[in-house]
Amino acid sequence: MNTRDALLHQNARFYEAFENFSIEVMGDVWSSVPGVRCIHPGWTLIEGREQIMESWARIFEGEVRMKVSLRNVKAAVYGRIGVVVLMEEISYQNGKMANSGTVMATNIFEYDGAAWKMIHHHGSPMIVVEEQEGENFRYN
Amino acid sequence: MNTRDALLHQNARFYEAFENFSIEVMGDVWSSVPGVRCIHPGWTLIEGREQIMESWARIFEGEVRMKVSLRNVKAAVYGRIGVVVLMEEISYQNGKMANSGTVMATNIFEYDGAAWKMIHHHGSPMIVVEEQEGENFRYN
Repeated sequence: MNTRDALLHQNARFYEAFENFSIEVMGDVWSSVPGVRCIHPGWTLIEGREQIMESWARIFEGEVRMKVSLRNVKAAVYGRIGVVVLMEEISYQNGKMANSGTVMATNIFEYDGAAWKMIHHHGSPMIVVEEQEGENFRYN
Repeated sequence: MNTRDALLHQNARFYEAFENFSIEVMGDVWSSVPGVRCIHPGWTLIEGREQIMESWARIFEGEVRMKVSLRNVKAAVYGRIGVVVLMEEISYQNGKMANSGTVMATNIFEYDGAAWKMIHHHGSPMIVVEEQEGENFRYN
């Protein structure tokens, strides 16, 4: 089960938790090992499962509803470590206000013998984006 | 040699190459395996050794001189994969103009049997920073 498909499935669950504001699924996706790390876009490093889950709880308390489309998903398995790199296209809805943004993400998972568990999430704002036809993006 | 110390040494060489605009050292730090990936702050994903080295060559062609201080360096070894997370405090000097910025970085290395080689670099601008005493930062 430490396959690329299982890795992508767990990565998708991370974004389901994010869209659905599900602290339960988010808690299941993240590893319980010490030293897990999370960088939300523009934030500094958050370390430790408890602190990371607190940060998600804070995000989920907000009024803003989010939809995330994943683009250019790349996954690689290196033994018990899996790395997923992708582009998050996030649409925000806050009352009548709508907005959108693109985030580059590096997600690292560790296979614990039964499942891939997230040990690292790094999301960062994309500043210069030029969309081209199809799935391709390039920087200027 | 696939130790944490060797991992940190190779990570330091990456920043030496960056400060010294050394395309030769940069080329030695990066892995030659397919699928290496690089996200410069605010840029979209760059894939492949050739494309990544071209991006560094372009950065090194610039007039801007950079000094990088590393803060809060965290390293973890998972078998043949090493992950280094840190804060880059970058001072820019462009002629008489000086500026500075903070970048959060996730650097992933693979041990190839002889050395740790970089397979992934994700640098992202830190937007909200509040410095506290000593080595600690927190977000607002």
